[in-house]
Amino acid sequence: MKSRAAVARAAGQPLVIEEIDVAGPRAGEVLVRIVATGVCHTDAFTLSGADPEGLFPAILGHEGGGVVEEVGPGVTSLKPGDHVIPLYTPECRECSFCKSGKTNLCQKIRATQGQGLMPDGTSRFSSGGEPLFHYMGTSTFSEYTVVPEIALAKINPAAPLDKVCLLGCGITTGIGAVLNTAKVEPGSTVAVFGLGGIGLAVIQGAVMAGAERIVAIDMNPDKFDMAKALGATDFVNPKDYDAPIQDVIVDLTDGGVDYSFECIGNVEVMRAALECCHKGWGESIIIGVAGAGQEISTRPFQLVTGRVWRGTAFGGVRGRTELPGYVDKYMAGGINLDDMVTHTMGLEDINKAFDLMHDGESIRSVVIF
Amino acid sequence: MKSRAAVARAAGQPLVIEEIDVAGPRAGEVLVRIVATGVCHTDAFTLSGADPEGLFPAILGHEGGGVVEEVGPGVTSLKPGDHVIPLYTPECRECSFCKSGKTNLCQKIRATQGQGLMPDGTSRFSSGGEPLFHYMGTSTFSEYTVVPEIALAKINPAAPLDKVCLLGCGITTGIGAVLNTAKVEPGSTVAVFGLGGIGLAVIQGAVMAGAERIVAIDMNPDKFDMAKALGATDFVNPKDYDAPIQDVIVDLTDGGVDYSFECIGNVEVMRAALECCHKGWGESIIIGVAGAGQEISTRPFQLVTGRVWRGTAFGGVRGRTELPGYVDKYMAGGINLDDMVTHTMGLEDINKAFDLMHDGESIRSVVIF
Repeated sequence: MKSRAAVARAAGQPLVIEEIDVAGPRAGEVLVRIVATGVCHTDAFTLSGADPEGLFPAILGHEGGGVVEEVGPGVTSLKPGDHVIPLYTPECRECSFCKSGKTNLCQKIRATQGQGLMPDGTSRFSSGGEPLFHYMGTSTFSEYTVVPEIALAKINPAAPLDKVCLLGCGITTGIGAVLNTAKVEPGSTVAVFGLGGIGLAVIQGAVMAGAERIVAIDMNPDKFDMAKALGATDFVNPKDYDAPIQDVIVDLTDGGVDYSFECIGNVEVMRAALECCHKGWGESIIIGVAGAGQEISTRPFQLVTGRVWRGTAFGGVRGRTELPGYVDKYMAGGINLDDMVTHTMGLEDINKAFDLMHDGESIRSVVIF
Repeated sequence: MKSRAAVARAAGQPLVIEEIDVAGPRAGEVLVRIVATGVCHTDAFTLSGADPEGLFPAILGHEGGGVVEEVGPGVTSLKPGDHVIPLYTPECRECSFCKSGKTNLCQKIRATQGQGLMPDGTSRFSSGGEPLFHYMGTSTFSEYTVVPEIALAKINPAAPLDKVCLLGCGITTGIGAVLNTAKVEPGSTVAVFGLGGIGLAVIQGAVMAGAERIVAIDMNPDKFDMAKALGATDFVNPKDYDAPIQDVIVDLTDGGVDYSFECIGNVEVMRAALECCHKGWGESIIIGVAGAGQEISTRPFQLVTGRVWRGTAFGGVRGRTELPGYVDKYMAGGINLDDMVTHTMGLEDINKAFDLMHDGESIRSVVIF
């Protein structure tokens, strides 16, 4: 079938709006009509060419909401008409990772997903006979996309897809990092480095967890209003200080924070986030994705004196099991997505979403098909 | 009073056996007659001059066992005749660290301890009128030493002090790192880097925790016999492989270990220990003390994909509360200390203990006064 799509033809080039061909779902696959999709920094990272695993031409996009159009042979958990959020971290419930109960990093289709292909090693996308690569197993920048059954969360059909699409990545990642990965306790002091969509979601998660103090850190003070509205209590612009920012935070919080979250992808900030943690028990969680080959460093004394360094992917959330609950929580007023959507646009204007993000003007842009 | 002691006069010089002067205990302090003391790498590290906080002249030693001789004003928990192990990590039960319930890193006397002084800012040691510095709050290389009450664990008087002195540092650190810091579960796969006293204690701890596979790693294959006797199941000499040792361990353990322990103090090995952990849940615990200014590094992707980087000091053990139980466990046959003591000697031969350690010939030497 034909589908409107934004195609990433080459690294560093704007996306090209095209009509592409989408093949029907094979065994274990589902054809989804994407209703709305967020535009995330990870899409921009891959489009820039900095992602060493980036493949072109490809259909990017991984923060979508849609409706099942057709299911392939053997699909049992979904039927046409179901509302779904595609999962770049699938949940097969069969692999050793899923069965471990210790991680959400299902590995069932990891290899082919990384190669930009469906689990059978082929693509469902083409343009003029030329195959196009899938991306993160989701490819939500096409009106029609094919996704493995194990990579779709079935959600409440009453939920507005142009809002809950954000639960496909950033917002869930931020909230999950607080609740699942860090397990922040009531009364905690928390530092959040970077106030984009993920950082703001961390603030939401910290409020849910009952954190007493939430220190919001960004070099762009325009971000502080929204952080405050969501529940942050302290605001720090590193540009206002000569001292290393970790020292500033330690002073501000009487010895350091209980939990810190790096939501930028900057390895120097990751170090600061660790080192602003409280001696004896502070834990730092890396959420941001650093550039290829970049490394984090610290003195081992930081760990020997009780700090813990962790990371998180998709907030530790098992998508098929837990994401429907996030949607319900949004519907009940427990998660603020509406204020996270600062811009909406049609597919034809998707490159504007990247510009707004690069200029720091948007929290999230949502493309509506 | 007069006391025989091994004095560290200057960095890089052998200890000098002298008769020094020891002043009586002041308020909150206890005079202890040291019966036996282990010699640990940390003593050697400070003596070498590599420790940026090292002070000279000083009385080193922190792995001792002794008997209370006299108590100062206000001391209520100890009386003359009690058997004790000095604690370089005290336990005041009053500071915010002790009260947190999250760490054993009591900070009550941290500042003066780091300055080589008693909590009132003075020294009890002198030689010919010249003050000598304390060390780690313990200074067990003197037959008589003065230690704060909060830095003494009262133990079973039936326990042989020339064995249980080792519970004052290395053995407790290794076992505690497994049980308290990592909380290794039954059935786990564990990697131990470095088979000195701490590494061997980690193996003991892993056996206690019910680990199924214990991979022992050392460049000196002579260490493997003892590791095997204590319960290690796999033995790896990095010199036998061209590939990075983390890759070797990952291959050997079907994707990586559940827990790894660095017991050397080498920052490159710390990296390998992290990176040999299983994706999704593997945790690495740094026990070794690195040289001044050295840093650990890795790609943040290692953490984002679920590995956790921790450290431990004194195995997370609260000395006054938990150490008596370690002594009882030894008495009941649950901890092997006897085989850890490979050499004993009188105080006059203490420099030989350092030589044996540097040559890798001893697990632990115990000096008997």
